[in-house]
Amino acid sequence: MSIHSVSRNQSHLVWDNSIQPILRVKEGDTVKFDCLDASNGQINPETTVISVASLVFSNLDQVNGPIFVEGAQPGDTLKVEVLSIETADWGWTACIPGFGLLNDEFIEPALKIWKLNKKEGFAYFDEAKGIKIPLNPFAGEMGVARKEKGPFSTIPPYNTGGNIDTRHVTAGATLYLPIEVEGALFSMGDGHAAQGDGEVCGTAIETPIVAELRFSVLKDRPYTKTPHFRTPSINVSNEKYYCTTGIETDLREAARSAVRHMVMYLEQEYKLDHVEAYMLCSVAADLRMHEVVDMPNYLVGMMMPSSIFSQQHN
Amino acid sequence: MSIHSVSRNQSHLVWDNSIQPILRVKEGDTVKFDCLDASNGQINPETTVISVASLVFSNLDQVNGPIFVEGAQPGDTLKVEVLSIETADWGWTACIPGFGLLNDEFIEPALKIWKLNKKEGFAYFDEAKGIKIPLNPFAGEMGVARKEKGPFSTIPPYNTGGNIDTRHVTAGATLYLPIEVEGALFSMGDGHAAQGDGEVCGTAIETPIVAELRFSVLKDRPYTKTPHFRTPSINVSNEKYYCTTGIETDLREAARSAVRHMVMYLEQEYKLDHVEAYMLCSVAADLRMHEVVDMPNYLVGMMMPSSIFSQQHN
Repeated sequence: MSIHSVSRNQSHLVWDNSIQPILRVKEGDTVKFDCLDASNGQINPETTVISVASLVFSNLDQVNGPIFVEGAQPGDTLKVEVLSIETADWGWTACIPGFGLLNDEFIEPALKIWKLNKKEGFAYFDEAKGIKIPLNPFAGEMGVARKEKGPFSTIPPYNTGGNIDTRHVTAGATLYLPIEVEGALFSMGDGHAAQGDGEVCGTAIETPIVAELRFSVLKDRPYTKTPHFRTPSINVSNEKYYCTTGIETDLREAARSAVRHMVMYLEQEYKLDHVEAYMLCSVAADLRMHEVVDMPNYLVGMMMPSSIFSQQHN
Repeated sequence: MSIHSVSRNQSHLVWDNSIQPILRVKEGDTVKFDCLDASNGQINPETTVISVASLVFSNLDQVNGPIFVEGAQPGDTLKVEVLSIETADWGWTACIPGFGLLNDEFIEPALKIWKLNKKEGFAYFDEAKGIKIPLNPFAGEMGVARKEKGPFSTIPPYNTGGNIDTRHVTAGATLYLPIEVEGALFSMGDGHAAQGDGEVCGTAIETPIVAELRFSVLKDRPYTKTPHFRTPSINVSNEKYYCTTGIETDLREAARSAVRHMVMYLEQEYKLDHVEAYMLCSVAADLRMHEVVDMPNYLVGMMMPSSIFSQQHN
């Protein structure tokens, strides 16, 4: 079993099965990926909000790869074990005009630069107010090439993965992806230091990462038609959640309402700015579908862990 | 502070602010509700699947109440502390034709009767296969009267609550409801012994319950426009989740795909029947919105706790 390396500049900007692999690996091999953040280096710790409006969109969400996995055939499943993820010591969260679940309500660009305390595993959202976010790094992008010819944007996820932005695939997790082309042609990127389910403002704590992944090919999982994953062991001790809900005839509107009500709550009780509250939802709170069957109304909840606040409010 | 009682027969079948309260309580009072299951007694431990098709729908989802809370005015918030919930020693889960997230794919009625081991806090889903569900009882229905005149079905939830089917409001939780009429006119029912986020097959482990709730009126929460809640302390120790995903341009279709893939996985790996697998999703697995911003594709996950299985499969 070998250990391979992929460097920052070995990236591509679209999914396209005609992109030549940069590396061939064998079953059980490990690859260490060094990845820029999802801005592809356009944002750095000194960037200010003025630069958000001038981001070059076509350069965003690059992925490093592709990796050709020997023995991988269409119809097989690629097993990706996430061995480790290391972030940089900084990150960013932005509201990018046009992006995000409430993009019609948050129209101005906004940018937050974070210092990541990697040793203690947290980042202050607001040190004065005692609000801090635990770091649970993962890669927002992990995917394989699609069977369809031609270029596909790296911004949406597909059944073959890609920008899955799924916060549970941290170190210790295993991801299963349906293989559509010979060699699988796996790529990854989009480091996140922390994110809630939903990534509601459109960004997480975005950060460069170094990730170690191990690959194998499974022949006995023909039912893997979309990404499946197994989380690492999860331990939650004495956690409470404060939750807001949205109840609407449309699931998306229900989700929007849940977020809107959490923003309102955080503004009132924790005296956060409107856009700060929205960003806090994106990096720390989870959107869950509490009920999807009591027609005609869906009920979606946004669950915020109380432990991120050193002072509990009403 | 007084303790009041509401009996099984003190129930009503619609939300309607003209229904006269059965009880007046003061701030800080506790009420003990004795509630039939959501079939309103139409299902009992001896019921067979034949009866599912002949359920009288207009008698379903009765709620016990209403309770007039003194001092409650429109614009205030009703604080409901869930002090305790006790289930019966049996429960049921059904697929009712026309109900459920995949109602076009599961068209036949199905019924499962459960024995609830209250002492040890679990129910066997399949004893031979070693699949058992931890009991986390809550009331699916908790709500207050709407300001609009006339009758409203108790099946959908509203901004005033009702059939919220939110599995997190177990004993120790606090629910906040926006008050729209004088006295709030609170009612509850629909005992669930266990449920996943989504309640995807349309039912949970349905059961009669006895619930103790404490009421107060808050004047300082004008932002409570939909149900908010605070969970009890949550402890999760060495839990893993197996997760399937759905990736679609429509959130509801993404949720349907995630469930469909979990059903397929459970059939293949755990040799469950098709409808059994669907029921297991409903009582034990959670629908979460992993990302809702990477347009045009939403990614919804169904997360199944591994601890319900005594034997782990692929």
